[in-house]
Amino acid sequence: MARNLLYAQSGGVTAVINASACGVIETARRHPEFFGTVFAAEEGILGVLRESLLNLSAESPAEIAALRHTPGGAFGSCRADLGDPVSQRADYDRAVAVLRAHDIGTFVYNGGGGSMLTAAKLARFARSQGLDLTVMGVPKTIDNDLPHTDTSPGFGSAAKYIVTSVREAALDLASMAGSSTKVFITEVMGRHAGWLAAVAGLAFESDDSPLLLLLPEVPFDQASFVAALQQTVARHGYAVVVVAEGLLCADLSFCAQAQISEIFGHEQLGGMAPQLAMLSRSLGFKTHWAVSDYFQRSARHIASRVDVEQAYACGAAAVRYAMDGATDVMVGIERTSDEPYLWTLKPVPLEAVADVELPVPAEYIRPDGFGITAAARRYLWPLIQGEDIPPFRHGVPVFAALARHRVPPRLPAWTA
Amino acid sequence: MARNLLYAQSGGVTAVINASACGVIETARRHPEFFGTVFAAEEGILGVLRESLLNLSAESPAEIAALRHTPGGAFGSCRADLGDPVSQRADYDRAVAVLRAHDIGTFVYNGGGGSMLTAAKLARFARSQGLDLTVMGVPKTIDNDLPHTDTSPGFGSAAKYIVTSVREAALDLASMAGSSTKVFITEVMGRHAGWLAAVAGLAFESDDSPLLLLLPEVPFDQASFVAALQQTVARHGYAVVVVAEGLLCADLSFCAQAQISEIFGHEQLGGMAPQLAMLSRSLGFKTHWAVSDYFQRSARHIASRVDVEQAYACGAAAVRYAMDGATDVMVGIERTSDEPYLWTLKPVPLEAVADVELPVPAEYIRPDGFGITAAARRYLWPLIQGEDIPPFRHGVPVFAALARHRVPPRLPAWTA
Repeated sequence: MARNLLYAQSGGVTAVINASACGVIETARRHPEFFGTVFAAEEGILGVLRESLLNLSAESPAEIAALRHTPGGAFGSCRADLGDPVSQRADYDRAVAVLRAHDIGTFVYNGGGGSMLTAAKLARFARSQGLDLTVMGVPKTIDNDLPHTDTSPGFGSAAKYIVTSVREAALDLASMAGSSTKVFITEVMGRHAGWLAAVAGLAFESDDSPLLLLLPEVPFDQASFVAALQQTVARHGYAVVVVAEGLLCADLSFCAQAQISEIFGHEQLGGMAPQLAMLSRSLGFKTHWAVSDYFQRSARHIASRVDVEQAYACGAAAVRYAMDGATDVMVGIERTSDEPYLWTLKPVPLEAVADVELPVPAEYIRPDGFGITAAARRYLWPLIQGEDIPPFRHGVPVFAALARHRVPPRLPAWTA
Repeated sequence: MARNLLYAQSGGVTAVINASACGVIETARRHPEFFGTVFAAEEGILGVLRESLLNLSAESPAEIAALRHTPGGAFGSCRADLGDPVSQRADYDRAVAVLRAHDIGTFVYNGGGGSMLTAAKLARFARSQGLDLTVMGVPKTIDNDLPHTDTSPGFGSAAKYIVTSVREAALDLASMAGSSTKVFITEVMGRHAGWLAAVAGLAFESDDSPLLLLLPEVPFDQASFVAALQQTVARHGYAVVVVAEGLLCADLSFCAQAQISEIFGHEQLGGMAPQLAMLSRSLGFKTHWAVSDYFQRSARHIASRVDVEQAYACGAAAVRYAMDGATDVMVGIERTSDEPYLWTLKPVPLEAVADVELPVPAEYIRPDGFGITAAARRYLWPLIQGEDIPPFRHGVPVFAALARHRVPPRLPAWTA
């Protein structure tokens, strides 16, 4: 009899991680000869350890299809990873016991680099225990910092939200700048890699624009930023600043942390945007600032169609690769053409992805550090192409409402 | 020969103020028997004083039509109003001289309460000087605080952005809350009236939800907020807090100002969201926060279709009212049915609108102060109905690109 499939979501969620879930579930359900019941673990690896499972085979096809346009992580996510297999042996034993108890033959883990490492470690341990387990990774992160894949599902939609929002807000600012607000500062996610700040460069097609980007890849120099801000306002009448939350100071500490503790001597109040706003105001510019936070990674209403398609395709491919006998691989996206944007999928060893974070390369950053190059535009444009508007009812988007059939536990409760 | 029409935009701009401009311009251009050239003043009343005019009759119909889906204020806006007609007499004389120099027979001012007062004062003064001038007001404000109109164009679209974004971010938070972030706080605009915070109540259909609203109409009581936050997290696993920037403390000072100066003793760093996040973290909740700022009022990509239609209709009606011989009126929206939402337009005396700010009424606020009532839902739902997605090209929305034909000045330069 066909063994079961277990799917789980891990790490910070995105606008399209559920599209990957949809790809996994729909594809697995079409192949009962390969897969028995399709389960999800709630809250990623934590749900595996807790034996907190949902029976997805009992969900209606319509609600599973609706996952494709539902943001957030429908099954819950977590920031926990499996630790060292020796010192944390009990966790591994428990995970394998749960997989055995529910006859899991395929485990699909949807997450970023850390999650791929967890998947790889679990795969190796399971086999060392004689459990025949196929382990597949599906990429996910708005940070776009995974190696061996052209992009990671989630990035394109966050990017499209940022490009669209910055373009819109710049028009607002332009209307007010003559006699009122002259600077608008917005902070985007990206602790270690500045991809989401870099992509804001697409909001303007020319380099001669009111836009200044501040990336973690370029240590912040206050004097040159002040000069650039003053020049930009002088030339364009206003300036739009997009800053990555993980901007680094000259000593490579996070600016947000360093300045906050320096100025206030206590816990973090705000991030880069309000701090830079204070600096901008000190130059005499009326300044507005925004921090999108979760909005940027959950803005399914302005998702990139390319991103949604890739997210779904990666989920579906993970299942197909499993049927083909592969294991211990993540589905990677390979670009074969910039324009038109063409891509295929390929298996990438989990271990090659694990815990590597790719920054924005130097050749994508303008020499002055405040913008992106033509090469960056060539790479980034395709990722925000196409719209995929979710259905609306009564004026608001309608999202999946799963029945969430809980699977009765077969093991004693887990105590960490 | 038909005299000319002058249109101008005033106050903080919105996602649909240009839709009103579109209504004014298209309607006036269809009636050459009534209107000669259609002009815009740049930056509102400042452009009148500076004689800084654009010839809109020379713009292509396609670009004028594109204003309907273009956020920001295409002609520039300002926060300046005309002052006292006696002490600021020179401004009034100059405005009338500019209107005469360009044979303006109709002045259409698109703004909020303060702008309607400026329009009323200019109308009275112009006639006292023997200038035959028709003055029309077109309502605009995301704050929804104008009297004698069911709503003000701009509110519905900001509202739809907020409801959609909060609904999306709540799904994100729900995914993470089991083992990570438990509270998400977002700050919305509204210095004196809490309409944009109140409308976030629509993000959940039931009162039994993870949502807590903090409106300027309900003085902030830290103890009851802390209790509500703890109860909400205990019951739902997480909490979403939507706070108006103008939240008032018990002594009726702005919380943002008061707490900042109390804690830091210097200029304002952030607003309510980061402050409440600090409070939430002190309760042991991992907390995220967002401030949408300009994004909420420029988010044309998620505009309310009802709002766009009303914005356009108000602009068009101002021109028709002028043709019918009315003057010194603002176009007001009158609701004739909640469901289906039906509305008509009506003239409202400018003076009746001037500088009145309507707060959220007590019957719209839940007894505990943290939510909205069924009556509020009945009022608010219609205003966010329907989508009006702008055209996209290469993955980003395409906005109007006006030729901006400057009108040669006929008067000496203005020196304020």
